[in-house]
Amino acid sequence: MNQNSHNSHLNEFSLFEISQMIQDGTVEPAQLAVDCVRKIEACQDELGAFTTFDSNKVFEQIKTLEHGTARTPLFGIPVGVKDIMETAGMLTTMGSRIYRDYVPKRDATCVAMLKKAGAVIAGKTETTEFAYFYPGKTRNPHNTDHTPGGSSMGSAVAVSQRMVPFALGTQTAASVIRPAAYCGVIGYKASHGSISLAGVFGFAQSLDSIGFFVRDVRDVVVIRNALFRSPGQLQQLPDVPRIGLVKTPHWQVAEPCQRQLIEHLCDFLSNRAFEITEIEVGPSDGALTEAQTTIMAYEGSRSLLAEFSTDSHLMSDPIKALIERGANTTFEAYQEAIALSEHWQRELRKIFLDFDVLLAPSAPGEAPKGLDSTGDPIFSRMWTLLKVPSINLPVGFGPNGLPLGIQLIGPFNQDDRLLAFSRQIESALTEFTFAPQYTAATD
Amino acid sequence: MNQNSHNSHLNEFSLFEISQMIQDGTVEPAQLAVDCVRKIEACQDELGAFTTFDSNKVFEQIKTLEHGTARTPLFGIPVGVKDIMETAGMLTTMGSRIYRDYVPKRDATCVAMLKKAGAVIAGKTETTEFAYFYPGKTRNPHNTDHTPGGSSMGSAVAVSQRMVPFALGTQTAASVIRPAAYCGVIGYKASHGSISLAGVFGFAQSLDSIGFFVRDVRDVVVIRNALFRSPGQLQQLPDVPRIGLVKTPHWQVAEPCQRQLIEHLCDFLSNRAFEITEIEVGPSDGALTEAQTTIMAYEGSRSLLAEFSTDSHLMSDPIKALIERGANTTFEAYQEAIALSEHWQRELRKIFLDFDVLLAPSAPGEAPKGLDSTGDPIFSRMWTLLKVPSINLPVGFGPNGLPLGIQLIGPFNQDDRLLAFSRQIESALTEFTFAPQYTAATD
Repeated sequence: MNQNSHNSHLNEFSLFEISQMIQDGTVEPAQLAVDCVRKIEACQDELGAFTTFDSNKVFEQIKTLEHGTARTPLFGIPVGVKDIMETAGMLTTMGSRIYRDYVPKRDATCVAMLKKAGAVIAGKTETTEFAYFYPGKTRNPHNTDHTPGGSSMGSAVAVSQRMVPFALGTQTAASVIRPAAYCGVIGYKASHGSISLAGVFGFAQSLDSIGFFVRDVRDVVVIRNALFRSPGQLQQLPDVPRIGLVKTPHWQVAEPCQRQLIEHLCDFLSNRAFEITEIEVGPSDGALTEAQTTIMAYEGSRSLLAEFSTDSHLMSDPIKALIERGANTTFEAYQEAIALSEHWQRELRKIFLDFDVLLAPSAPGEAPKGLDSTGDPIFSRMWTLLKVPSINLPVGFGPNGLPLGIQLIGPFNQDDRLLAFSRQIESALTEFTFAPQYTAATD
Repeated sequence: MNQNSHNSHLNEFSLFEISQMIQDGTVEPAQLAVDCVRKIEACQDELGAFTTFDSNKVFEQIKTLEHGTARTPLFGIPVGVKDIMETAGMLTTMGSRIYRDYVPKRDATCVAMLKKAGAVIAGKTETTEFAYFYPGKTRNPHNTDHTPGGSSMGSAVAVSQRMVPFALGTQTAASVIRPAAYCGVIGYKASHGSISLAGVFGFAQSLDSIGFFVRDVRDVVVIRNALFRSPGQLQQLPDVPRIGLVKTPHWQVAEPCQRQLIEHLCDFLSNRAFEITEIEVGPSDGALTEAQTTIMAYEGSRSLLAEFSTDSHLMSDPIKALIERGANTTFEAYQEAIALSEHWQRELRKIFLDFDVLLAPSAPGEAPKGLDSTGDPIFSRMWTLLKVPSINLPVGFGPNGLPLGIQLIGPFNQDDRLLAFSRQIESALTEFTFAPQYTAATD
């Protein structure tokens, strides 16, 4: 192969696929890097997925990969790193004007782990301001007038458009699942606390979690295996997986196409040896969603105190409003929210004795039009609160031609088991097609 | 009062006391600062409690305290900050040669909260290397040939010797409780996750917790109230508190004087309307302690990856051994340790239905002789693993004239309730005296 060929499209392969090709020697990391770099450069002006990108730095890293050493699964794989994660010698802006010139001296733990596993840092991906709601410049590749979702917007778009095989994100409310759904990629949020956040801007310690964007569930298995030496193979599963359908108290907030998708999909799976039962998780008044909002404001206002006290003039109105809301949240309200979360973490554990995986909407529907907002996190807040792992699977498109997704949720700290069920459902859904019977709501 | 008087000893008052005096205007912050600075300077050469101390910076902060504003409880109170916590414009060495010149641009969240509450940063207190086991220069004030304990060694000594009314620490194994016991002060470790670690060097995300060193249980109430607006008053308590005595699987590791102290103390409390029952928490083979050790190595080796990959020549042998141990810990062993922790967190919750507070040793006994080791964390590992709040109360002295302590443990996230019971026991123990009937084990 010609390393400089502009006819190859190695960037099109999923991580799972290209990792195999690099390991067996049919592809060299430099070839993959050339194709990824070309794709990033071709998309950057229109989509703005990257905050910091320098092709020279990518090729420099390729050169330093040791020849002749064992090729581990992430060897030579370019990865997008959300710009709230510290990268040694590389700009880390936190999506904030306060940090516009900040170059950390060392890597966040997750970045150091990736480098040790042989991955190549492709660049820093766009984030909302401090991973809250004020948007970055990224646009939805399916329609550039629409938001890609937030906060991990650049990572979702970079993977969606095959600029990189995978990218890192974080989630405090819905910052992995929502952009994954809006951009039509797989987004995986790890169990709370299971991946170190050291060197990642901390927003709300009870909620913040690391996540990955990929294009195949098996890609997550590869990454987890490379980073943690978790099992490299999917678990054996029961013949008739038990799925709990959770419409959540916000079902009526979902667009008709999103509700219809989930109902069709449940019919489809029921006919293919999946046992599906509708269940409720949490109080019917949406108190879990409210508790997440309370905790995020209370903890977030404290995390941002240092910046707010010196540089509030460089902060957006939405984040200043959050700081104010948090400052006005009483300790008692915060403690009540924490206690409610703890109670439902225990209840959810019991629920998982009867169900293998839960299924819920990932978002209210298609990515909304406009770039001033990143959409509504309402369908992920409760799952983030409950600390459980979750995955967005892209499943079809809505009436505007934008992606729709479903969210799968597993028991706390049983991420590998959730991945196995997600792969099973992903496989079953290859034959599933969805044509919404509703006309476009936005126009 | 003369602000420059060298005859006052305002530094001798507890936080609870001096806070009242500043709030009612009988003492000015500058007066307290003069006395604290004098005490710090008098002790520094012999005890080495501070890594970074500059009296000019203290007095500069005093000058910027706003006159005429409401005096909140921490207004003008000097505080020692453990040197793994980032302080804007002030050296933060992490106890490591790698960071010997590191001056962060912003404050850790806990530091920003203290400043907002009106506290004055007295300086940075000595820590072991990255808050692990390799000691700093601090000596035990009760006998300078003995360790003060680690890792929050400087904070424990600074409060013990009345250099500051309170100081911050962190605990991953026993880094608050052990130095508090060895130095004869109160050490409080908050429920895991309840105080943000943003801007604090992260060692093991499942274990790291913030703590305070003070000289009166009511001081902790003042600090929590100032920082979180938690209740400023202690809760009402039952007439007959139910204490669960947990000797732990390591009882035989404790020195005779430590075991005798606890037995005498339980007799004493039983005669004063406390109901004391001996119970077991966790498997009798010490598996909880082992699980904590496994998690600390596994997570710690990942947290230190960035430093290890570039600067291992500046790291101590003990921390390199930990990194190696962690790198050789399998994912399965880690997952088993996490699962055991989760199981016993649930069991402990049930135990607390029958008991108000648990009582256990804080350490094996007196601070050991020698400055090369910081003593054995064995009696705190399991409680840190289980994420519950705990307190060391200093209770008497051992045969070498060094302090002994007891550890009180409360239910997860019910820190305010633990404080109320701790105060009740602290008050009851004012009449308790302990004279060990064993001769010195160390000589």
